[in-house]
Amino acid sequence: MAEIKNVWVDILSIGDELLIGQTVNTNATWLGMKSNQMGMQVRRVIAIPDNQAAIIRELETSLKEAHVTFITGGLGPTKDDITKKTIADYFNDELVRDNATYERVRLFFEKRNLPLLESNHGQSMVPSKCTVIPNYQGTAPGMWMEKDGHIIVSMPGVPYEMQAMVEENILPMIQTKFEMPTILHQTLMTIGVGESSIAEQLKDFENDLEKDGISLAYLPSPGSVKLRLSKYGVWEKDIARERIQQRAREIQNILGQMVYSDHEISIYKKIAELCQSQNKTLSVAESCTGGALQSSFTAEAGASEFFKGGMTTYWTQSKVDSLGLSEEFIQHHGVVSEPVAMAMAQACREKMKTDFAISTTGYAGPESPDPNVPVGTICIAVSDGQSTFSKTLRLGNNRLRNIQNTCLQAANLLRVQYFNN
Amino acid sequence: MAEIKNVWVDILSIGDELLIGQTVNTNATWLGMKSNQMGMQVRRVIAIPDNQAAIIRELETSLKEAHVTFITGGLGPTKDDITKKTIADYFNDELVRDNATYERVRLFFEKRNLPLLESNHGQSMVPSKCTVIPNYQGTAPGMWMEKDGHIIVSMPGVPYEMQAMVEENILPMIQTKFEMPTILHQTLMTIGVGESSIAEQLKDFENDLEKDGISLAYLPSPGSVKLRLSKYGVWEKDIARERIQQRAREIQNILGQMVYSDHEISIYKKIAELCQSQNKTLSVAESCTGGALQSSFTAEAGASEFFKGGMTTYWTQSKVDSLGLSEEFIQHHGVVSEPVAMAMAQACREKMKTDFAISTTGYAGPESPDPNVPVGTICIAVSDGQSTFSKTLRLGNNRLRNIQNTCLQAANLLRVQYFNN
Repeated sequence: MAEIKNVWVDILSIGDELLIGQTVNTNATWLGMKSNQMGMQVRRVIAIPDNQAAIIRELETSLKEAHVTFITGGLGPTKDDITKKTIADYFNDELVRDNATYERVRLFFEKRNLPLLESNHGQSMVPSKCTVIPNYQGTAPGMWMEKDGHIIVSMPGVPYEMQAMVEENILPMIQTKFEMPTILHQTLMTIGVGESSIAEQLKDFENDLEKDGISLAYLPSPGSVKLRLSKYGVWEKDIARERIQQRAREIQNILGQMVYSDHEISIYKKIAELCQSQNKTLSVAESCTGGALQSSFTAEAGASEFFKGGMTTYWTQSKVDSLGLSEEFIQHHGVVSEPVAMAMAQACREKMKTDFAISTTGYAGPESPDPNVPVGTICIAVSDGQSTFSKTLRLGNNRLRNIQNTCLQAANLLRVQYFNN
Repeated sequence: MAEIKNVWVDILSIGDELLIGQTVNTNATWLGMKSNQMGMQVRRVIAIPDNQAAIIRELETSLKEAHVTFITGGLGPTKDDITKKTIADYFNDELVRDNATYERVRLFFEKRNLPLLESNHGQSMVPSKCTVIPNYQGTAPGMWMEKDGHIIVSMPGVPYEMQAMVEENILPMIQTKFEMPTILHQTLMTIGVGESSIAEQLKDFENDLEKDGISLAYLPSPGSVKLRLSKYGVWEKDIARERIQQRAREIQNILGQMVYSDHEISIYKKIAELCQSQNKTLSVAESCTGGALQSSFTAEAGASEFFKGGMTTYWTQSKVDSLGLSEEFIQHHGVVSEPVAMAMAQACREKMKTDFAISTTGYAGPESPDPNVPVGTICIAVSDGQSTFSKTLRLGNNRLRNIQNTCLQAANLLRVQYFNN
């Protein structure tokens, strides 16, 4: 077994559909995650068309520079799939029938009562020098080749076929080839503070971090920033884990309540956990977020454990009809105001008979119908019956981003006000 | 203006998060789609880490071989973002302050009532030789550089910031640089029928299509299939457009009502157009879709013109409390049943005082709580007060896919039943 500090991985994704915007390359994301978890380092991900010259060129570079090259796609039965032929040519090899694959393909069609076509037989032809990786989910087998200690694995592009091969055969095979370095990550989740403001607060911490050989990455998305601590190799795994956890606690001490989790979960899942552990129920009254906040909670399986339901009172009239707010009250404060948001949360909580309620009202954009209230002005509130808290957000004019951001802030307000967590 | 048959595009995606499986590279997909629509050909998509040597190496290859290189990512204010510095070094250029960007960043923070930090000022530093592409959605500007007729554009990795720049500035600028081949597309939108079933119905049509040099692409996503007719080059644009429109009409004649639009819009936007043109209002009562259907309608600007609101009656008790359904009725038919879906739509329409209402009730998965009703069983209904129509969907066990698919089918049911369109 070769002892290697850094096992470099290239991911080669083959297929026209990846280049014309038809298919999102989730295979590369998945392979990146798996490689990283194992302690390998992905050097580059390349998507290229079903074109022999392009495939050979990238294969040559990868063979020179990467220890492991994952190739996905181009193994189908149609004539635009040329990966297998290209690889065989490149290795001066010929395609021969693999009997085990032949039998597997035959059974695959027999079981589904489908006619076996000539093109399907082609699936059992593989380069004579390769190790065949069986495909139990489909017809195209994987192919493992080695050259001067470099590994090339060619797999079908269908995600679940590829994933099964990687988990069941390929990763275990790779593990017998290299002694991997230790790799550890810890992710902290924050909401409501920008990347640059967090960086400012963590300035001294980051300078001090270097001596531990731990790196800190900022992964921002609208309204939230993930912080990822990573430690590669050298240390004993236990010591490294302890040190990285210690550093994560230091970040939590510095950033305080803006950190909502020390592992990767959404704020909605976090609220679900908090509510379930304390046997609390939740309802939601939305105006400008238009159902997106309810939808965010119900996207997680098991939401019915704590989420009773909610309402989207999109028209002012609906706030009167469904929530029982008075027209004069709304008129007096303005429909986008903290008093209205608070009244919505209180009324929703009572109507839906829940422990907590969250509400939103505002102008999500792209324009504001009210010259006195700029677009992006959004009021949110949370109530538990005893107390009600509200907050006004001042966002931009990007409608979808405002909706997404408001949902995060509103869920987070519930956490901050009612859960000391 | 250079007349070029094939304008080659490279997409360089920069960021560690793309290689370790943390972020799916949707930017490359989007840029691929936009390039393709314009008649440019994407040669390769490469994702590499925030590493100077890797960036320079790929940049050099792309500068030699591609006419246009799109670079995304690595422009943030933190020190792991090194793209800008790397590009300036590569072009032997220095970073200078761009006053327009400086002012835009200052206003961006002022408007949001946020402190302007030193690191934010860094955002207005750009290579002296570049053309600045303003970022109206965020702080990091885009940078356009040219070398020997090759174009390099560096953009932030935040999708909506990048997309706004590309649509508003970058594509129009590219169009002035190259004479592109004529390319025409027409997209037909379908819901509710699988790709292979459509292909079967269009078999003869497709064979006949070849003589016009028009290609037909199937672009499936869960619950819906887009059909895209494309014609490249050669013909007069007017003749090509006429012929492609004629072919689109032929498809509509063959597929009938399953085509809901002859241009690319969502079914939600289509419903919005239909309701607005006929002065109708809509409300929604959701169970298993948990707010996603309301959210789909309100995602489009101007939704308040026709969408009054709705409710998510997630718990059975909420169907009683909020919609006034009787417990015995629900008990008798089962909460996942067409009678309950119909009663929900009727009650919602009355409560919300709208012309139409849509409802959903089912088990979205991943499991069913009821041994007699398999996971993926979902009932939908639509009502206009006079009549009510329902339908039962039998889907798989993927929760998010089921929710998305149900929303499409439910919106489509309204179109099919109440709009002859």
